[in-house]
Amino acid sequence: MDETPFGDDTLHEECGVFGIYGRTDAAALVTLGLHALQHRGQEAAGIVAYDGTQFHVERHPGLIGDTFTKQSVLERLPGDSAIGHTRYATTGGGGLRNVQPFFAELAAGGFAVAHNGNITNAMTVQRELQRRGSIFSSTSDTETILHLIATSGARLFKDKLIDALSRLEGAFSLVGLSAKKLVGVRDPLGIRPLVLGDLEGSPILTSETCALDIIGADYVRDIEPGEMVIVTADGIESLFPFQKRKSRFCIFEYVYFARPDSNVEGRNVYTIRKNIGAELARESHVEADLVVPVPDSGVPAAIGYAQQSNMPFELGIIRNHYVGRTFIQPSDAIRHMGVKLKHNANRAMIEGKRIVLVDDSIVRGTTSQKIVQMMRDAGAAEVHMRIASPPTTGACFYGVDTPETGKLLASRMSIQQMAEFIKVDSLAFISIDGLYRACDEDARDKHQPQYCDACFTGDYPTALTDLDSFENVRQLSLLGGFG
Amino acid sequence: MDETPFGDDTLHEECGVFGIYGRTDAAALVTLGLHALQHRGQEAAGIVAYDGTQFHVERHPGLIGDTFTKQSVLERLPGDSAIGHTRYATTGGGGLRNVQPFFAELAAGGFAVAHNGNITNAMTVQRELQRRGSIFSSTSDTETILHLIATSGARLFKDKLIDALSRLEGAFSLVGLSAKKLVGVRDPLGIRPLVLGDLEGSPILTSETCALDIIGADYVRDIEPGEMVIVTADGIESLFPFQKRKSRFCIFEYVYFARPDSNVEGRNVYTIRKNIGAELARESHVEADLVVPVPDSGVPAAIGYAQQSNMPFELGIIRNHYVGRTFIQPSDAIRHMGVKLKHNANRAMIEGKRIVLVDDSIVRGTTSQKIVQMMRDAGAAEVHMRIASPPTTGACFYGVDTPETGKLLASRMSIQQMAEFIKVDSLAFISIDGLYRACDEDARDKHQPQYCDACFTGDYPTALTDLDSFENVRQLSLLGGFG
Amino acid sequence: MDETPFGDDTLHEECGVFGIYGRTDAAALVTLGLHALQHRGQEAAGIVAYDGTQFHVERHPGLIGDTFTKQSVLERLPGDSAIGHTRYATTGGGGLRNVQPFFAELAAGGFAVAHNGNITNAMTVQRELQRRGSIFSSTSDTETILHLIATSGARLFKDKLIDALSRLEGAFSLVGLSAKKLVGVRDPLGIRPLVLGDLEGSPILTSETCALDIIGADYVRDIEPGEMVIVTADGIESLFPFQKRKSRFCIFEYVYFARPDSNVEGRNVYTIRKNIGAELARESHVEADLVVPVPDSGVPAAIGYAQQSNMPFELGIIRNHYVGRTFIQPSDAIRHMGVKLKHNANRAMIEGKRIVLVDDSIVRGTTSQKIVQMMRDAGAAEVHMRIASPPTTGACFYGVDTPETGKLLASRMSIQQMAEFIKVDSLAFISIDGLYRACDEDARDKHQPQYCDACFTGDYPTALTDLDSFENVRQLSLLGGFG
Amino acid sequence: MDETPFGDDTLHEECGVFGIYGRTDAAALVTLGLHALQHRGQEAAGIVAYDGTQFHVERHPGLIGDTFTKQSVLERLPGDSAIGHTRYATTGGGGLRNVQPFFAELAAGGFAVAHNGNITNAMTVQRELQRRGSIFSSTSDTETILHLIATSGARLFKDKLIDALSRLEGAFSLVGLSAKKLVGVRDPLGIRPLVLGDLEGSPILTSETCALDIIGADYVRDIEPGEMVIVTADGIESLFPFQKRKSRFCIFEYVYFARPDSNVEGRNVYTIRKNIGAELARESHVEADLVVPVPDSGVPAAIGYAQQSNMPFELGIIRNHYVGRTFIQPSDAIRHMGVKLKHNANRAMIEGKRIVLVDDSIVRGTTSQKIVQMMRDAGAAEVHMRIASPPTTGACFYGVDTPETGKLLASRMSIQQMAEFIKVDSLAFISIDGLYRACDEDARDKHQPQYCDACFTGDYPTALTDLDSFENVRQLSLLGGFG
Repeated sequence: MDETPFGDDTLHEECGVFGIYGRTDAAALVTLGLHALQHRGQEAAGIVAYDGTQFHVERHPGLIGDTFTKQSVLERLPGDSAIGHTRYATTGGGGLRNVQPFFAELAAGGFAVAHNGNITNAMTVQRELQRRGSIFSSTSDTETILHLIATSGARLFKDKLIDALSRLEGAFSLVGLSAKKLVGVRDPLGIRPLVLGDLEGSPILTSETCALDIIGADYVRDIEPGEMVIVTADGIESLFPFQKRKSRFCIFEYVYFARPDSNVEGRNVYTIRKNIGAELARESHVEADLVVPVPDSGVPAAIGYAQQSNMPFELGIIRNHYVGRTFIQPSDAIRHMGVKLKHNANRAMIEGKRIVLVDDSIVRGTTSQKIVQMMRDAGAAEVHMRIASPPTTGACFYGVDTPETGKLLASRMSIQQMAEFIKVDSLAFISIDGLYRACDEDARDKHQPQYCDACFTGDYPTALTDLDSFENVRQLSLLGGFG
Repeated sequence: MDETPFGDDTLHEECGVFGIYGRTDAAALVTLGLHALQHRGQEAAGIVAYDGTQFHVERHPGLIGDTFTKQSVLERLPGDSAIGHTRYATTGGGGLRNVQPFFAELAAGGFAVAHNGNITNAMTVQRELQRRGSIFSSTSDTETILHLIATSGARLFKDKLIDALSRLEGAFSLVGLSAKKLVGVRDPLGIRPLVLGDLEGSPILTSETCALDIIGADYVRDIEPGEMVIVTADGIESLFPFQKRKSRFCIFEYVYFARPDSNVEGRNVYTIRKNIGAELARESHVEADLVVPVPDSGVPAAIGYAQQSNMPFELGIIRNHYVGRTFIQPSDAIRHMGVKLKHNANRAMIEGKRIVLVDDSIVRGTTSQKIVQMMRDAGAAEVHMRIASPPTTGACFYGVDTPETGKLLASRMSIQQMAEFIKVDSLAFISIDGLYRACDEDARDKHQPQYCDACFTGDYPTALTDLDSFENVRQLSLLGGFG
Repeated sequence: MDETPFGDDTLHEECGVFGIYGRTDAAALVTLGLHALQHRGQEAAGIVAYDGTQFHVERHPGLIGDTFTKQSVLERLPGDSAIGHTRYATTGGGGLRNVQPFFAELAAGGFAVAHNGNITNAMTVQRELQRRGSIFSSTSDTETILHLIATSGARLFKDKLIDALSRLEGAFSLVGLSAKKLVGVRDPLGIRPLVLGDLEGSPILTSETCALDIIGADYVRDIEPGEMVIVTADGIESLFPFQKRKSRFCIFEYVYFARPDSNVEGRNVYTIRKNIGAELARESHVEADLVVPVPDSGVPAAIGYAQQSNMPFELGIIRNHYVGRTFIQPSDAIRHMGVKLKHNANRAMIEGKRIVLVDDSIVRGTTSQKIVQMMRDAGAAEVHMRIASPPTTGACFYGVDTPETGKLLASRMSIQQMAEFIKVDSLAFISIDGLYRACDEDARDKHQPQYCDACFTGDYPTALTDLDSFENVRQLSLLGGFG
Repeated sequence: MDETPFGDDTLHEECGVFGIYGRTDAAALVTLGLHALQHRGQEAAGIVAYDGTQFHVERHPGLIGDTFTKQSVLERLPGDSAIGHTRYATTGGGGLRNVQPFFAELAAGGFAVAHNGNITNAMTVQRELQRRGSIFSSTSDTETILHLIATSGARLFKDKLIDALSRLEGAFSLVGLSAKKLVGVRDPLGIRPLVLGDLEGSPILTSETCALDIIGADYVRDIEPGEMVIVTADGIESLFPFQKRKSRFCIFEYVYFARPDSNVEGRNVYTIRKNIGAELARESHVEADLVVPVPDSGVPAAIGYAQQSNMPFELGIIRNHYVGRTFIQPSDAIRHMGVKLKHNANRAMIEGKRIVLVDDSIVRGTTSQKIVQMMRDAGAAEVHMRIASPPTTGACFYGVDTPETGKLLASRMSIQQMAEFIKVDSLAFISIDGLYRACDEDARDKHQPQYCDACFTGDYPTALTDLDSFENVRQLSLLGGFG
């Protein structure tokens, strides 16, 4: 099979969040918002709703449209305020125990929390908490946040929350729900996105603007790095409780994670991807007959490339969008046939042509290899690959599921070696400065980079305490294999 | 419908436990043991197994034979030691979050625990723990035990466990599993049963001897009230860490809960039930043509009654053992027909006869009413009801699901009124002393009763702290309605 | 495992039928009736309802209480007339295609049919029909009946039906439903039961009276062998369209298949079983301490034996009624332990005692072997086995699932050899004349036996055309393995 | 909701077929082929495999990737030859009974058949067959074919098949499987596609070349209209048993149904769609800022339009490909919000721009209305709609699910009225001759049209016997509502 449904040769954003305050059918609106954020996590989702008296929690594996859209599920989530979360697993192992939001009945009342990102000192903090007698029912870093709130010495709930979050390193764009408050917080560097929206007076906090669009809500503004907003019946309060730092938004959100119709940090994602394609065309032009995107993520950059280079843009690869939940482990005989479950060459376009293939990134390289082979089999005269990001050389510790560094093709090969490995006539990546230019910067500021680009540069903007303290960070998730 | 599958007119034991140490296929053996204990709880079950490296947890709603017997489930439970639990809900609301065993990764390592009984100060302790910053992921009293262990100041694990259990009031027959130990504890009064068995050298701790029989294990002895046994690779250690008290085993285990083929506290249950029937015949003889049990629980007492009174024992009521999982809410038209899903009169036996109907107890009285009516419809000349327990006048707080006191028929009617309510020609219950005689005692010792008989006498042998402290003890289970 | 849920060491009745005419909620009443007939078939069930305009068909694998009791299923079965069928597979392989009732839109209108029994020339007729161009969508003999109706040259529907049924050999107690009629027919020998009932004016046709009792319907009379009844809005018409023959009701219905609270052919089943026990006691008395039934089927005969012999009746074996749907294929290690899923010795009763074990029949002998061993392990001093039927030496071809003749223990061993095989101190079967006496006959009439007793005597009352014509009759069911 | 998962405002192709002969893992290969044909039917699928001894049938509702890809399902389909079918319902109601392939054990042996298309005299033939005594277990026209074979007077199987097919009117591209043969037939007009492929010597018959590509099979040739091919171990035989007629391939296959990477009737679908876009630009040019496709079906025509008119092609609408199985019936409050489950405007591209929107067709017009409103809400200055097919004015009776004629927008409005209805600044459809030009014809031959274009012209190339004979053709599917 060329790719499993959740193929292991792409990067996966871990999460999307959505919260709404003071609106009938809150859980149904969260469901729709999470559906629009499905690209940020397809493995499982959860919603917590508060009905004025009780909190209701539902968590289900699978796609939103298969689970939370059932009447029976929504009926178990009454209330005017709700938060939800959709998830691709990074921190924590399998099982519904690790599906967010997390909820606890604290001494001061119930509180639910969900976040997008990853806490890089979660294990360290967890060990401390265990030593003082705290019990963990999951291996998720989100539960750690609840414990820190529960054990905070502060008196007011707001201060407990600030106290707890101040203990954290890493990336977190968080939504929380208590009986009276909807809370939103971005970490001081603002690595992951979080926006404020409004549906006829009801405030919304969510990861991307496309989740506002689906229900016709208005975009108000982005929550700022280090900002905490507290929504109550009295309005929206804004605080900046953390030490001020220069922001470092994840540049890969522009390259791949965010949906093209979203605006993030004030910029349209589709436009930036077209800019990247145009920069690529300027940086590494090649004579060819047509520009072919690797669908769907390569399409905007390919359009930009084609427009800049005045070459025709053509669908030389057709993607089959019907992908089932459980794809077979075929017999050896079939596996070696090189079955093409997801992509097929549009041979009539490819045959005898020199093509520029545009893709968003190269991870392990195995998919690129297959796609190039498919073009060769379809009779391409030349295949030139252009990548809409710099070489991915490092793992992400801020909420993206990357293979170990050693498995990243760019971490162990030069561009020339990679070109040979994937068997293309030429291979070029956009330069790091080209990428920054596509984002309307003059160039990358080496001393104070404007974005988090650690996966390209190795320049991690936070401490990585757990990584330095534990032999195998990933094993945490294996200890409590709850069913 | 005369009775739903889990009818609301019987008492339900909450739990059965089973643990085994040092035997290949431990989880499969626990599964078989729990199958034999299915009468102690049909709603859900859980097993935790330890494979030398990791703990594995599975929890499933439904019958053992529908869930844990699947190969796929057992394969996820490798290991040589395991504990399991089968459950009918009393403490805690629905949802798998409340299914035992509970497991936590404590600072000192993983620990799993399951118990039969009910902690009567669990909410009080939980509130204290919440105030110090502990987070609860369930509403089960079992999680409270884990928290008390986690927050104990003692150094050794054994002492932490003693420390934790010393804080508890109520009834608990507990099994626990750590990486190196299988632990069994009975509360100081020994209200619920717990026996030690042996399968070719592998120690077993379980609720009833029938769970030993199913796998051909030998019965070694009953764990004593207040005893803690610790099974390790080095053998079995026995401790008595609590203040010594006179035991108060639940006498209703003999009347109804335990399986007739089990021996509990050294006595055969079937034999005691026959004794009860014989005592009843002596205490309240009546001239009749035959003795008819309400199946299945009334059978042994009816045999005893028939043998003592020299009347023929006949199956005048046939029980349909095929009861589905989800029985319809029929239309009003059908509901009023008095459909007999579970029991049917064997008219050929009943017609024109004077019958003695023997049942184990009367709870709300609605089932008795229907059964008597069924006998009348089948042409019974006279119906005399004999009950194998004294009138049930009080709720149980030690692990049995009883209706509120006000709904117990005997709490608001005299025996004569009850006879009229259920429309029998005569009604008699065994006397409390008769019941003690059937258990080989001379009589009930009023000053130091030999058994817990609180549901008949109101004489509760422990403090009921939660009941005295909270307005509505049952509401705890409703707060965190986790899915 | 001592027995799988549908163990292979018992005989299985294939079917129960239930039809009702002119009553709101017809399908719900059929569901309840089939629930009472669940002992006649647990594998699958089907209901066809007619709502005045359309026929609705539902077929589901599994128990009635798990499928047809769902509101969603019943809502798909509106109408005032309905027939249903519950099934254990004999003719035809797996798959819902073979689940009755069968329905076809004939030229004259829709017709649904279900029957209890087995057509012994179904394959022969099917081959003929295929040669003339008929297509079979199942391997069930019931579909053959529909084809014979469809291809009959008769003009009136009633005559087509008579025409079709006249072609059949074997046993059939049939219910049929057209837009205007509910039809019931018993084959000329009346091998399987069929009774007429009445629910406040609505006629009912069903296999046993217990299916009338569950909904409080009145028993009217047994349909006679060779009788056809046609229920319409105008009343009930009775015909005898077949050549008159002396009836041969299946005597095994009394021994094992029918429910003890049913009256069949005018006699109470429980009473006959007690008679059998009493005859057994007279025929093969033995000195012992107690009489122990193999539950549940051996109970009435054991009561009869105990009363006749003045020995105490005791539950020496306890049956676990919780049997799951999917029981494990355990590891070899566990399989060799002799796990007791279904039965357990009540050791306190057995130890040191001489016991008379009463069971209904011996099929392969493997279950008897295990039960006896269980008694020995529990310390029985002597085990005397008494069987409530003569030795089963021949297969049934009239709707009972029997192993091949060669696998029947009695077909290849003398009683003495069987006693040694199952390791009892003595073994006795009731004599064939004793069995007839228990049924209120003086003795078996050798020339014109009053019952079908072919499984004991080899005296088959009908031709067995398929058996004589095809090499392997059972293979029919394997050809069209529909899913 | 703007569109349900199987929205009612698109046309649906009914079927795709795939058969392979003489290759290990035949069913797995059929599964992959059907996955590539999923766009031709998403409701259910079936596969019949022959293992040299028996036929095996599996039918499942839902997507291939959710059902047939399970190991357990494939294991039940052993064999070296298999045929499969994927289906969107047109003829016949719900229920697995109508899922193809159909299989029957005929007098001459087993035969399975599946087809793409629709038989326009199926009901008429069915009534005739019922009168002679044939029984139908489904309401599918495919079963009619089996009956015609079964009742044919011809001697050889091949002649029976020809005899049967000669009785049919309408469109059918059929695959059949007997113990020794794989058969493929196209109706004399060749309305639906069927191609011959080859996988390392194993012949394949399937609807589109994309189903060959997925498993790396070679395309050999299109089966010709009126051709029957018979694949046996001895090779491939070709026959033309029907009266020769001029072909009339469905032109809508080019416009919408076929996958763009398929070649049908020797032409590349993507290229023809681009041609259509270019013709549209020539026929109805308009000054604008960008060309925006309605994804995904409008993309190739939009690329053609943009290239021809030298306007930029931009993704102004983003499609969410995650659509669940069961989407909610939301509350009224939410429904009126105009939720956008499937499409979202890419506002940054649209705002202030004059756009040309390109879509494949207009059915009811409701989707167009919503898409245009979405563009307006996103700030489009002007919206000009261009449609890649002529106005759809008539229903299809050849295997496409069209609404009743009266519900087709173009059947009751002029183009100007339609423009007002969907609120565009201008609206143009490609002319019928323009469409033929895009297919490399000079123009439509009015006397002998080269294609079936009945949905645009009302010129139906076959008799419509059922339509003329029955009051409500659609009711057939309602009669036998099998479960």
